[in-house]
Amino acid sequence: MANYVFGVDVGGTSVKMGLFDKDGNVLDKWEIPTRTADGGKNILPDIAASIKEKMAEKSLAKEEVAGVGIGVPGPVEKSGVVHKAVNLGWSELNMKEELAALLDGMRVEGGNDANVAALGEMWKGGGQGHKNLVAVTLGTGVGGGIIVNGEIMTGATGAGGEIGHIHVEDDETEACGCGNYGCLEEYASATGITRLANRTLQKSDKDSVLRNGEVSAKTVFDAVKAGDELAIEIAQQFGEYLGKGLGVIAGIINPEIFVIGGGVSKAGEVLFDYIKPSFERTAFHGSKDVIFALATLGNDAGIYGAARLVLS
Amino acid sequence: MANYVFGVDVGGTSVKMGLFDKDGNVLDKWEIPTRTADGGKNILPDIAASIKEKMAEKSLAKEEVAGVGIGVPGPVEKSGVVHKAVNLGWSELNMKEELAALLDGMRVEGGNDANVAALGEMWKGGGQGHKNLVAVTLGTGVGGGIIVNGEIMTGATGAGGEIGHIHVEDDETEACGCGNYGCLEEYASATGITRLANRTLQKSDKDSVLRNGEVSAKTVFDAVKAGDELAIEIAQQFGEYLGKGLGVIAGIINPEIFVIGGGVSKAGEVLFDYIKPSFERTAFHGSKDVIFALATLGNDAGIYGAARLVLS
Repeated sequence: MANYVFGVDVGGTSVKMGLFDKDGNVLDKWEIPTRTADGGKNILPDIAASIKEKMAEKSLAKEEVAGVGIGVPGPVEKSGVVHKAVNLGWSELNMKEELAALLDGMRVEGGNDANVAALGEMWKGGGQGHKNLVAVTLGTGVGGGIIVNGEIMTGATGAGGEIGHIHVEDDETEACGCGNYGCLEEYASATGITRLANRTLQKSDKDSVLRNGEVSAKTVFDAVKAGDELAIEIAQQFGEYLGKGLGVIAGIINPEIFVIGGGVSKAGEVLFDYIKPSFERTAFHGSKDVIFALATLGNDAGIYGAARLVLS
Repeated sequence: MANYVFGVDVGGTSVKMGLFDKDGNVLDKWEIPTRTADGGKNILPDIAASIKEKMAEKSLAKEEVAGVGIGVPGPVEKSGVVHKAVNLGWSELNMKEELAALLDGMRVEGGNDANVAALGEMWKGGGQGHKNLVAVTLGTGVGGGIIVNGEIMTGATGAGGEIGHIHVEDDETEACGCGNYGCLEEYASATGITRLANRTLQKSDKDSVLRNGEVSAKTVFDAVKAGDELAIEIAQQFGEYLGKGLGVIAGIINPEIFVIGGGVSKAGEVLFDYIKPSFERTAFHGSKDVIFALATLGNDAGIYGAARLVLS
């Protein structure tokens, strides 16, 4: 009986790996370095070797393992084809087929890391009990993953759910990392909040605790909680953009729940106080009844979601 | 052998009906009035009676009919539950179950009319050959239907793809029909174009053929084709909003193709000249490679899509 499954989350510096039972209990968790040199050609062999080693360690026969799920940073087509994953050094490859071959034909399923993490939050995290879910990761950038009827919405070329780059501001003069102007990521990521904060501090004469130290998403929301007026203004700007962005997403996708994760989400539910006003104002009434929840799996969302890929 | 299928498209004044073979050839097409009185209680019985009559006329046995697909104006859950369809007088009912009961247990599949029309365009219209498609209907309002991997994205409460009400303008002072301010429909529908035109004519001193007669989406685009400067300005405003809206949709959905239909689309491919600049400027690069096509089935998209529901 195939009672076990591996979940693999490939990052630019390390590969997180987990061994799960079919109910989603994590039995073991470890990491290996991501060797990105030489076009990242060692990454999949390293993963295969580590899985085989773990199987030997746990005395697991091939028949006991349902398969391996893997999430990678970059667009992944349904077939497993990756055209480019900059952070891994990869160009064109079919990661499902290649990893399966390295694992003697074991079943492999794969997807984009943000999408896979969304699936993890649906399965065992903040989105449990829901099948139509939008996961929003507020980290260095803004990532997203959309789950429709329990399945990842991959999109035509694997770029489905790239919500960090939806256009929300016409009058932006600084370019986003993607080259466009006025992307959601420029206002709602950790970097974006810092940028909004620095702009606001410069424009205003108001006193603020933010003038006395490092300015970051964390210090801004700490100051918000302490009642700092200028920090509250910054949070309002952040929330105005993110709430409008989520309003648009709700109008298109009509999800049951938004699951908000990433470093910025460590601020907690106070975020919702700033997101909801503009969401309520702009979202279509037929799609407005959406739950706002915090992600709960943190950096493990990826391995959970990857494992889940094999079980669906 | 069940070689036939019925497609039904319920509108506020008439019900369009079609008999198809399984390859999607339309064998017969007719209409019956929509009796909306008494909470629309006659609508489904009228449809059932008309289907039975047609089966008798064509000497079709029940076993020869694969089923009946039906599209209605309003959100429809996957189960067939309609909570409210204002134009039909309906409140809470399960239209799949009720129609199936009226048809002696025949298979019935149902959906929202805009979503079903999108499926029709995918099957036999402007979106043939594609499985990830966004249909945009520029009529009195702006409707939409989203197809993911060949299936309608219904959303949690049946409001998936309601793209007419995504927020695209912060500074709007006139309310949309939905109650919000700055919805895409306020600029990209036939009504919206007329509104933009009247505003522009009022603000400007420029001469224009539009000052000499009726102002409508049709006269605006006729004037655009004749090189009228003010009409071109209006078309640019329309295109700026719609292009940005489609850019956001592309970033979220990552479709292969946009299929543009509805009355406004009769202007033809000239529309794309005005939509594409803002789309190209704002859409995420990973989702930018989308085909723009015109819908080809016109008012028949609904019956085609409804028939297709039964065949998937």
